[in-house]
Amino acid sequence: MIQTGDHHRRLLWALSEAGQASRTELAAAAGLSKAAVTAATRELIGSGLIAEAEQVRRAGRPSTLLTLRSGAVWFAGLSLRPGRGRIVLCDMKGHIAGRRDLPGRRDPHEICATLESDLEALLADCGVERDAVYGMGISISGVVSPEQDVCIRSTLMGWNDVPLGRMATAALGMPVLIENDANALAIHEKLFGGISGDSLALVSVGVGIGGALFIGRQLFRGAAGGAGEFAHITVAPGGAPCICGKRGCLDTVASMRAVATAAEEAGLEETSLDALERAAAHRGDSRAIAILHRAGEALGLALAHLIQIVNPGHVIVRMEADTVDGLYATALAQSLDANVLPQMRERTALDVGTALEGGHAAGAASVAAHRLLLTPNTKQRKMA
Amino acid sequence: MIQTGDHHRRLLWALSEAGQASRTELAAAAGLSKAAVTAATRELIGSGLIAEAEQVRRAGRPSTLLTLRSGAVWFAGLSLRPGRGRIVLCDMKGHIAGRRDLPGRRDPHEICATLESDLEALLADCGVERDAVYGMGISISGVVSPEQDVCIRSTLMGWNDVPLGRMATAALGMPVLIENDANALAIHEKLFGGISGDSLALVSVGVGIGGALFIGRQLFRGAAGGAGEFAHITVAPGGAPCICGKRGCLDTVASMRAVATAAEEAGLEETSLDALERAAAHRGDSRAIAILHRAGEALGLALAHLIQIVNPGHVIVRMEADTVDGLYATALAQSLDANVLPQMRERTALDVGTALEGGHAAGAASVAAHRLLLTPNTKQRKMA
Repeated sequence: MIQTGDHHRRLLWALSEAGQASRTELAAAAGLSKAAVTAATRELIGSGLIAEAEQVRRAGRPSTLLTLRSGAVWFAGLSLRPGRGRIVLCDMKGHIAGRRDLPGRRDPHEICATLESDLEALLADCGVERDAVYGMGISISGVVSPEQDVCIRSTLMGWNDVPLGRMATAALGMPVLIENDANALAIHEKLFGGISGDSLALVSVGVGIGGALFIGRQLFRGAAGGAGEFAHITVAPGGAPCICGKRGCLDTVASMRAVATAAEEAGLEETSLDALERAAAHRGDSRAIAILHRAGEALGLALAHLIQIVNPGHVIVRMEADTVDGLYATALAQSLDANVLPQMRERTALDVGTALEGGHAAGAASVAAHRLLLTPNTKQRKMA
Repeated sequence: MIQTGDHHRRLLWALSEAGQASRTELAAAAGLSKAAVTAATRELIGSGLIAEAEQVRRAGRPSTLLTLRSGAVWFAGLSLRPGRGRIVLCDMKGHIAGRRDLPGRRDPHEICATLESDLEALLADCGVERDAVYGMGISISGVVSPEQDVCIRSTLMGWNDVPLGRMATAALGMPVLIENDANALAIHEKLFGGISGDSLALVSVGVGIGGALFIGRQLFRGAAGGAGEFAHITVAPGGAPCICGKRGCLDTVASMRAVATAAEEAGLEETSLDALERAAAHRGDSRAIAILHRAGEALGLALAHLIQIVNPGHVIVRMEADTVDGLYATALAQSLDANVLPQMRERTALDVGTALEGGHAAGAASVAAHRLLLTPNTKQRKMA
């Protein structure tokens, strides 16, 4: 048993960013002396967390590249939604080794009662020993305490102050951390998306809109845990009432729920984003065009505000739809470009894509990887 | 001569936040062991930077409170504007010991040529030895390099890539750092405004609008140095053209310049904010009311976006006007409240006030204090 101290965590983080790196490169990236890197890499190799990958020649001298070792340590991730649950097992590189669909339970006691058998079944599928599982993350739509043990509020699950993290930790006998679903996706993109730079914003567009800010090596939660709550940016002052009590929120215009409602009100048979994109593209339906344009334009304006205020290096949009290059995305990009200073727009990479199948559960697993193994921390944690 | 290492800086920062604190309290606030605090406070007392303030009894036991010692170290601050310059001398607590008005020079060579004599005259006014001046900050409207040595662009000064920091450092033979004026004000508020918490946004409302974000113990600059560029948040999509090339920017509606332009166009004799507030209050002038309401409402909407995205603990608005409780401020507060989730609004303190006379130059001095003495840093710096 070794300890993952601050040096180990800095090296693991640097390796997760770089993929492969020499000891000299790691020393520069992690801000450590060569002697410290030599000592810490020896311990990490001994524990099986990293391995020597290949010999290369740099500036004429042979150099050994190090890499994270998949398979040494595993993280479980559980995503909870009213209609469906899913549990996955991920390695240190964020790859999903196996997944299981679960019933869409809402009762926290019921969820925890079957957690042990759900995990055991998944581990059996993957042929992974339980001792190699370092911890679990749980992803949920809602607000989570900074300690990541209590779900303060989840409208979708109908929860208030549910100590799910503590309950699950007790049920499994391993560390379990809960996290807001958009935050979990942002952690996943940051850890495993090959994204460098010190700031990243993520927007998830599903039935509702979620958001997260990642600054430095941490989620940025703000004073009331509300940083990244892009759903309730006002995009239409005095507009339609939102479930939050305000008017004209982004969620009332650009979410999949809002798009479907607008389509129904316009008398369209198609209500999903993909179907509306087809109606717009194939038969030039003016109602579908107007709805998609308005929704994409609103999201673009909100993202323009985000860039103008925070100027993040990356803005990642993950849509629960297959069509991510249609009218919605075009209107989004045009509106974004029109409402940000060009010199700031140039330095923010925009990535609009489809939310991955199982993405929320993989995000949940990343939460555990981030908190338990990769976050630099001066406190020592035990490592199995 | 001693070195201010990381421990010293952490203690100085903790003392600047707390005002007075015991060694035990400092150990907790700075994350240091009691032994480390004992050693570092001995060195800081020896160098005259801190002093024992008073004996108190805490939990029945006598305890000595420590405090920063004003007068041990000084920082010079220079604010540059086309029409006027100003140089001030501040102590470690941000108090201004003396100030001098300077001609509103624009030529960087001319500015640097007289810097030595300007500083000497100020020091003579204050009776401070030059050896006690730790460095200078220069505050300027524009974009500054992350190294704080080059002014990348200043529309007001007509500068592009002017290495003013380097030129002034050479001219004075002491460290000189340059900074955007709103950033400098934010640093001043954070260091000397008694503000705790890990996030602060500042908006300066003058001829133009400036902004800054302070996260943790650092300014947050974003990917292109544009974080906090609130002036160009779109508040009126498709609205009036802005000097930046976009339309409907906050600057085109809520700045003093925009208010004056709107007043002229409405045929009003009054064009300053204060005069318009009087016209609205005393004779109920409907044109003045409409202009003030529109401007304040726009700033409130932009600040709502800021809070909804970043959720900072403090939002500080500094207006170059005397009337900060009139219609402009009322419309601002109403618009803000209407466009932020209540649970996020509750946790963000809003402080609207008049910009202090000499505030920009004091802000500039804070830049030097922040970078040279208070920012925790693992690198060692020489201390005079």
